[in-house]
Amino acid sequence: MSGISKRTFIASSLALAAAARPLDGLARQSDRKLGYAILGLGYYATQIIMPRFAECEHSRLAALVSGTPEKLKKYGEQYGVPESARYSYEAFDKIAENPDVDIVYVITPNSLHRTFTERAARAGKHVVCEKPMATSSADCEAMIAACKKAGRKLMIGYRSRFQAHNIEAIKLIRDGAIGPVRTVVTDHGFTIGDPKQWRLNRALAGGGSLMDIGIYSLNAARYLTGEEPVAVNAMESTDRSDPRFKEVEDIINFQLLFPSGATANCVSAYSANCNRYRVTGPKGWIEIDPATSYQGQAMRTQLNRQTGPREPAPQPKNQFSAQLDHLSECILTNREPIVGGEEGLKDLRLIEAIYRAAREGRTVRV
Amino acid sequence: MSGISKRTFIASSLALAAAARPLDGLARQSDRKLGYAILGLGYYATQIIMPRFAECEHSRLAALVSGTPEKLKKYGEQYGVPESARYSYEAFDKIAENPDVDIVYVITPNSLHRTFTERAARAGKHVVCEKPMATSSADCEAMIAACKKAGRKLMIGYRSRFQAHNIEAIKLIRDGAIGPVRTVVTDHGFTIGDPKQWRLNRALAGGGSLMDIGIYSLNAARYLTGEEPVAVNAMESTDRSDPRFKEVEDIINFQLLFPSGATANCVSAYSANCNRYRVTGPKGWIEIDPATSYQGQAMRTQLNRQTGPREPAPQPKNQFSAQLDHLSECILTNREPIVGGEEGLKDLRLIEAIYRAAREGRTVRV
Repeated sequence: MSGISKRTFIASSLALAAAARPLDGLARQSDRKLGYAILGLGYYATQIIMPRFAECEHSRLAALVSGTPEKLKKYGEQYGVPESARYSYEAFDKIAENPDVDIVYVITPNSLHRTFTERAARAGKHVVCEKPMATSSADCEAMIAACKKAGRKLMIGYRSRFQAHNIEAIKLIRDGAIGPVRTVVTDHGFTIGDPKQWRLNRALAGGGSLMDIGIYSLNAARYLTGEEPVAVNAMESTDRSDPRFKEVEDIINFQLLFPSGATANCVSAYSANCNRYRVTGPKGWIEIDPATSYQGQAMRTQLNRQTGPREPAPQPKNQFSAQLDHLSECILTNREPIVGGEEGLKDLRLIEAIYRAAREGRTVRV
Repeated sequence: MSGISKRTFIASSLALAAAARPLDGLARQSDRKLGYAILGLGYYATQIIMPRFAECEHSRLAALVSGTPEKLKKYGEQYGVPESARYSYEAFDKIAENPDVDIVYVITPNSLHRTFTERAARAGKHVVCEKPMATSSADCEAMIAACKKAGRKLMIGYRSRFQAHNIEAIKLIRDGAIGPVRTVVTDHGFTIGDPKQWRLNRALAGGGSLMDIGIYSLNAARYLTGEEPVAVNAMESTDRSDPRFKEVEDIINFQLLFPSGATANCVSAYSANCNRYRVTGPKGWIEIDPATSYQGQAMRTQLNRQTGPREPAPQPKNQFSAQLDHLSECILTNREPIVGGEEGLKDLRLIEAIYRAAREGRTVRV
């Protein structure tokens, strides 16, 4: 082996090792896990996200933000978050002075995403914001600008991108297992209850099922095809005499057309339980049902004329911990999240197009 | 028991017995099975339908009509159809003189359905015609008028209405098992091959996947909801550089809105294999996959919060024999078929609306 090729070989080996374990050096450098502040202590924050820091390598719970003092006390004590790191919404901006907090995770009603993202960025913190990113594309653009101005990273909580079955589906499709995608059929909905919840309040939610659960159908159609739609159809069905649907839509099903010719038929519903997709090409199909739930994903495929269940390649972490760590890793290595602000903005622009298509009864070109 | 109530009881018992075995008396009266002429000796006629007369109670194969003398000879000999009951298309009208033939079953390319239905009716025969009933709603109307004028019955070959899983799905929905239907998601398609086949010839087929296989999605959405749609959206995706799709569409997905607020998302494709539906309401869902195939139907339900496979109530006959016998029974008892000419006409009107919605990029009210 010549000197040059040997050096090249060593460099390549080091690069490969670094790629496989990208954070070893940096994690040692910083010698700490990045600190998250959880903003908004509802069900998803307290029951789904906060317990998952235990499985994180690069992330830890460092602060809490809530409008309810009892919640701050309860969860602060439960998770060992000191009183000095518990913030009311009024006092939230003081988080700028807390060096223990690197990231703010915004888990509020949708219409508050923008203001808290902007305040977090102004406080010098990186931000992860739940989906939908905001209630308008204009708000999304403002959030992206605020984080850019502050030099901070912005991620949107598209956790399915970190989930084993969804990762496997994307890989199979990209590897050509089903041939070119022809149809994505994806249904997301649940039977919503209490008419007084914020999800049914237009001012807080920005819309109905599409904002909350139909966005999973939309985002899945995009990550499964790997394309951006060029045309949108939609059809709404809402019983306005139902006390739940005075302000927001119940069902708004939509169709997408992609540049390759791939199509998507998508359900978005607040009066039917469904959580699944099937992607079909000339060579077969891939189905996950449930597809984007918190747990319990199950995959079936028809590949090489064989139909049956399939276990995806295992992932090192659950989707929640992997998402938390992804942003930490991006900050530590100065990379952009795979689901950054632009990803949230794209969905909001399409959500606006879907609403317009339904309202105007026409195909909207996007 | 008083005299009156006893008479009422006896009458009711007789009526119930008659309903349970409606043809005993009439079958004895006529003392024969009704005779079918099969018109068009392609795959579906010869491999799927003709073998099923063996399981019929009220139907038998009595004549053959084809443009290919070799087929007339081959199948005539195989099924014991005498030479006098084998007709070329030119000689077909002479079937009027054959008292052995009660019914003509038209299984030709779509654009020929009208003329053969009209000729059969003029020959004094009842008619069953394969779906799509014709290539335009105007042709459907002419066929209905021709049979009405001749005083003959007309049925369309919607065999799924005689198939056990589909019967069970309809019954469950009507019984309220899933509550009011909110979404029907149904996909029908296959990967079509030889570019030279009649299905890809616009003059013979009248259209592409929608005429041939997407019509199953459309018809299922209608029989599952038990309603007629009021609005239609559609989105087409056809690669016109593909030699198969020079004349007809590949994918044309469509959405339906029903008066109750039920919705349907439907796939119609010639470049993807799919044959299924799921019907969802607030209380659960019913899925069949494959749903409308020749055999192999499999049902899963989510009812009373339990998800799992379900075996439908058994039906006395397979879907093909049951369909053949249904028309015979309707003729013997002078009832109208559950899938008469009006049923075919309704689908054709909707197919025209779907094409218009795709072409004009707008929601079509129907």
